[in-house]
Amino acid sequence: MPKIRAAVAGANGYAGMTAVSLLAAHPDVELVQLTSRSLAGKPYQEVFPLLEVRGRFSDEIEPNGVDVIFSCLPHAAGAARTAQWFQAGARVIDMSADYRLKDAAAYPRWYGQEHPAPELLEKAVLGLPELHTEEIKQAQLIAVPGCYSTASILALAPAVHGGLIAADVVVDAKSGVSGAGRSPGLGSHFAEAGEAVSAYALNGHRHLPEITQELAGVAPDAVAPRLTFVPHLVPMVRGILATCYFDSKASAPELTEAYREFYAGQPSTQLVPTTPSTKLAGRTNLCLLNLAAQDGKTVVTAALDNLVKGASGQGVECFNIAFGLDRRAGLELPNQWP
Amino acid sequence: MPKIRAAVAGANGYAGMTAVSLLAAHPDVELVQLTSRSLAGKPYQEVFPLLEVRGRFSDEIEPNGVDVIFSCLPHAAGAARTAQWFQAGARVIDMSADYRLKDAAAYPRWYGQEHPAPELLEKAVLGLPELHTEEIKQAQLIAVPGCYSTASILALAPAVHGGLIAADVVVDAKSGVSGAGRSPGLGSHFAEAGEAVSAYALNGHRHLPEITQELAGVAPDAVAPRLTFVPHLVPMVRGILATCYFDSKASAPELTEAYREFYAGQPSTQLVPTTPSTKLAGRTNLCLLNLAAQDGKTVVTAALDNLVKGASGQGVECFNIAFGLDRRAGLELPNQWP
Amino acid sequence: MPKIRAAVAGANGYAGMTAVSLLAAHPDVELVQLTSRSLAGKPYQEVFPLLEVRGRFSDEIEPNGVDVIFSCLPHAAGAARTAQWFQAGARVIDMSADYRLKDAAAYPRWYGQEHPAPELLEKAVLGLPELHTEEIKQAQLIAVPGCYSTASILALAPAVHGGLIAADVVVDAKSGVSGAGRSPGLGSHFAEAGEAVSAYALNGHRHLPEITQELAGVAPDAVAPRLTFVPHLVPMVRGILATCYFDSKASAPELTEAYREFYAGQPSTQLVPTTPSTKLAGRTNLCLLNLAAQDGKTVVTAALDNLVKGASGQGVECFNIAFGLDRRAGLELPNQWP
Amino acid sequence: MPKIRAAVAGANGYAGMTAVSLLAAHPDVELVQLTSRSLAGKPYQEVFPLLEVRGRFSDEIEPNGVDVIFSCLPHAAGAARTAQWFQAGARVIDMSADYRLKDAAAYPRWYGQEHPAPELLEKAVLGLPELHTEEIKQAQLIAVPGCYSTASILALAPAVHGGLIAADVVVDAKSGVSGAGRSPGLGSHFAEAGEAVSAYALNGHRHLPEITQELAGVAPDAVAPRLTFVPHLVPMVRGILATCYFDSKASAPELTEAYREFYAGQPSTQLVPTTPSTKLAGRTNLCLLNLAAQDGKTVVTAALDNLVKGASGQGVECFNIAFGLDRRAGLELPNQWP
Repeated sequence: MPKIRAAVAGANGYAGMTAVSLLAAHPDVELVQLTSRSLAGKPYQEVFPLLEVRGRFSDEIEPNGVDVIFSCLPHAAGAARTAQWFQAGARVIDMSADYRLKDAAAYPRWYGQEHPAPELLEKAVLGLPELHTEEIKQAQLIAVPGCYSTASILALAPAVHGGLIAADVVVDAKSGVSGAGRSPGLGSHFAEAGEAVSAYALNGHRHLPEITQELAGVAPDAVAPRLTFVPHLVPMVRGILATCYFDSKASAPELTEAYREFYAGQPSTQLVPTTPSTKLAGRTNLCLLNLAAQDGKTVVTAALDNLVKGASGQGVECFNIAFGLDRRAGLELPNQWP
Repeated sequence: MPKIRAAVAGANGYAGMTAVSLLAAHPDVELVQLTSRSLAGKPYQEVFPLLEVRGRFSDEIEPNGVDVIFSCLPHAAGAARTAQWFQAGARVIDMSADYRLKDAAAYPRWYGQEHPAPELLEKAVLGLPELHTEEIKQAQLIAVPGCYSTASILALAPAVHGGLIAADVVVDAKSGVSGAGRSPGLGSHFAEAGEAVSAYALNGHRHLPEITQELAGVAPDAVAPRLTFVPHLVPMVRGILATCYFDSKASAPELTEAYREFYAGQPSTQLVPTTPSTKLAGRTNLCLLNLAAQDGKTVVTAALDNLVKGASGQGVECFNIAFGLDRRAGLELPNQWP
Repeated sequence: MPKIRAAVAGANGYAGMTAVSLLAAHPDVELVQLTSRSLAGKPYQEVFPLLEVRGRFSDEIEPNGVDVIFSCLPHAAGAARTAQWFQAGARVIDMSADYRLKDAAAYPRWYGQEHPAPELLEKAVLGLPELHTEEIKQAQLIAVPGCYSTASILALAPAVHGGLIAADVVVDAKSGVSGAGRSPGLGSHFAEAGEAVSAYALNGHRHLPEITQELAGVAPDAVAPRLTFVPHLVPMVRGILATCYFDSKASAPELTEAYREFYAGQPSTQLVPTTPSTKLAGRTNLCLLNLAAQDGKTVVTAALDNLVKGASGQGVECFNIAFGLDRRAGLELPNQWP
Repeated sequence: MPKIRAAVAGANGYAGMTAVSLLAAHPDVELVQLTSRSLAGKPYQEVFPLLEVRGRFSDEIEPNGVDVIFSCLPHAAGAARTAQWFQAGARVIDMSADYRLKDAAAYPRWYGQEHPAPELLEKAVLGLPELHTEEIKQAQLIAVPGCYSTASILALAPAVHGGLIAADVVVDAKSGVSGAGRSPGLGSHFAEAGEAVSAYALNGHRHLPEITQELAGVAPDAVAPRLTFVPHLVPMVRGILATCYFDSKASAPELTEAYREFYAGQPSTQLVPTTPSTKLAGRTNLCLLNLAAQDGKTVVTAALDNLVKGASGQGVECFNIAFGLDRRAGLELPNQWP
């Protein structure tokens, strides 16, 4: 069988680099183009000295003959190109936020501008395989959700789906600094972020509407629970831990059963018996979930690697589904402890 | 004026080392004895090579002629000695958990044993100056609260005192690894704790009853709000951030005013306009508080240095009050950023 | 073809865990036994919650029917068992220091005791494939060299082999804290090792005689150059960087050519054009080498992952050679940056 | 006595912030102006929320009435202003590299441009009190040496002064990431610098000519030994460790005696009996030195805090000397372990 011809746009950021590294080892993929605006003309080896992928970064994807484009461009930058890529026949796995929200009217509040291509929103499928496997199979445009969103949605979906949340939910999330991307800034400067923990985006983070949209989608009454989401920056390179608090209408065993059923047969989401360290999920495509309780309050912890299950690993998982491959192809990444 | 003669029991742990380092520089103190079981007979220089304090560690405090003993022994180890220290005339600043809970019956649940000296509990005053200044002035036995407790109580006391909490409270706390003490163990092993975040003590941490006891103490109806407390281990040496979530009965300005009033004149607790990084409080005796809101949910963040305001700095602050000194003597520790 | 039946002794330390994780994913291997003294009787899942390997830790290897034993026991603990394992027909890949030095007389100085099984030393082959491929093919007992030794020997062997070192060599090595193993201790306690760099073993580290033995082995006159080796502990989980300084008798291009030739066809040692970050070698089985010069002094930097190429990855590489498999089987571990 | 009126130019970088923090607590200083180009017009509180210094950043120093200016501007930016500051009567403590090298002809090689004010070079005194106390007393312009330079010079000066170095010297230096300053860049981006060690500037670092200039200055024959200097970036916020290797003409006791004599009476440089962790020098104005040997090779390790003794602490020390104050005024900063 001929290999699937894949291109990565924005291959010089962390999501892009992770996509390249996974696709280069994927048995069914041939990497045919990598783009990077800042590195156009330079050999791939400058960014990937250990990979056998040879060639030079281009400025733009040349979509003819490309089967699938992993778009890891900054928000809004990719949206301007998507229509052209479709015309050339490529399917698109988009790692940006451009197509995650169904409602074009929501973009200005969260992204500070009108949506650049609202007509494409209805084509987009959210790339969260645990919720949208069937839609992903047919999708031309897959919008991989944010790292915080993936952890939070997976931590809460079974409870919401079962109508088991009594009142509101607090999600206190902690992320490694690679979540801020590869563009330098004071917040991700080593001496500022090292030896420090801080909260941010207290009045509302961009991943919040993704979370509530998806939870509403699984809720019996199509309404998400009231949800407070506060992200924190933690001095580690990788990993997200979402600690979720709510009062449950169900007993602990019933709740556990609801989660087991919801994720039965799902290869990338796994219940674990003790609250997981982010280290255990590190560099794997797994989201690890634990259910606990404290004096009647349910506490669900979700751990994942923000660049793998929280970004490009999940992108590859969607790609596998969309192209009819084994969902775990190229993703059997063992955790190497510590 | 003759200097106050101070001894530190358990000077080889982090609370003990911090006490020694602060007392060695305190203008009104003469450090006369340091103890360490494991180092008995060895010169102080082995632990404090840069300090000018000369002498050798002893196994036990010889309390005669000692004005104040900072007890940094493990839980229960100090309690066996306190009565003897009192008889010799010394006042005690206890950094352990031995005298924090008023109710002797609560110890077995949280500490796995009966209280070793229940008759002393009524003599003890909780060493949280923001709540107990007057009692500390007279106290013979000051029980400095835990690091998590200090951050959580200071973050919530004004709201509880004003009866402003509508329902329950979630406290999601993050601590640097020095909070686990200086005795090596797998949980604080570098390769395990580094590059990882994890929750622990999900079914109830020892600091929880301290928090609820003190919040009940300031509540109009003497009842603490229902409170869920989950601590997390974060890969940094020092610092605690407590993120506290509740629905407020008051408007944001009213709430801020309640906090301002409650802490008026308090030198060690300070409202800051943006959510604080633990780095800003690092190596100071300050607890920094910020009030924010997200869609109606109040989010109070509290940052402090777990070994200073969260332990021995607060111990020195209590000592200053108890001995009629300037409350900030020896504690004007500038934050050195980063 | 039936799978090769492998056992791991000491599966609860970092070398053991890494061996298990690599062997569990190895296409030609069936993991049949794991031992751990402290965990005997407990299910494997306690240490490897994500692996599909099922069973319970035993106290000792039952060698009958086992083809290969990866011995990750502490120094001297494995040596007592090796003879028995041989009798049962198993080949042994030893990750400890027990069989690295050819000269039994050298053990007391470096390990504080007589060698427990000196008669086995002549059977042992040093498990450094770049130097001993042919011997490894036949070996019953393969002694995988230390992490520092692997980096230092690979950094220097071509220059020594070519007789190109004019005078002495300084090796200044930096290691992540996992190099100290998984047993907790003050030196690897997070709060002590975090935010700190320090030198240690200034008067001679155990890996020094391994380095000089192997360099002597490749030297034209069978004499290693005078070599000073100082290891440093660096606040990261994984990685070793060895910075090697010497005056070269050859020009820079000649030296580069000597390295190219020496490592031609070697899959695990790679020359890179800029001095490598340990991050680039992270979680791979590669040793990355760079040659540079400063005012006539040659500076060779070598980077590797101390638990993979510096320990169990190299052990698997030796295993592949010894059992006639593809040398890279189970070792195509992509670097995931960052 | 009226306080000395001090200004800090470039108060928003790490050297500037450290200078402000130390001067704000200095008993003899009144901080009268802070400048920052990027923050001109903004209140000091944005950078120093905990300090009681009130006012707004200006764009340029107004030197009239200012007694001393701590110039923490980028290289070359301050040099353009120095003459004007002198005319107004201010003395200058310069933290940049502008006046460290005596030879104007050396600047183009190391700084890529002609020296902007070569006529001032002869007025400048190197601000290393251990070598230049008397000159500092009279100096109008004090050029504080670089962080690596301070550690390396202090580690080697006694041996060079005594003519005790037999051949050449290797200095392998390790720095925390704050040494790269506060301007964000990929090299100091958390996800790149975290969990990684790497060498850099292999073909020559800017601090090398400072080191050789000063060592020549103390050498009996006015010639510095041949010296190779390779800096490394280590994943910690603060600290420098310089490991220095040389063959000594003197015995170990003679060498120790030479160091003791050389630093007799020096408050900021201290010999310690075991090789120091950078943690021990952290946030103090101390350079800690240890002498060791390995098979005849002398190994001197020097540890300091790059922002205190390696930058603004040393600047304040020079200021104290220049203004006739106690050399340790404002600098009795206790190490808080860990």
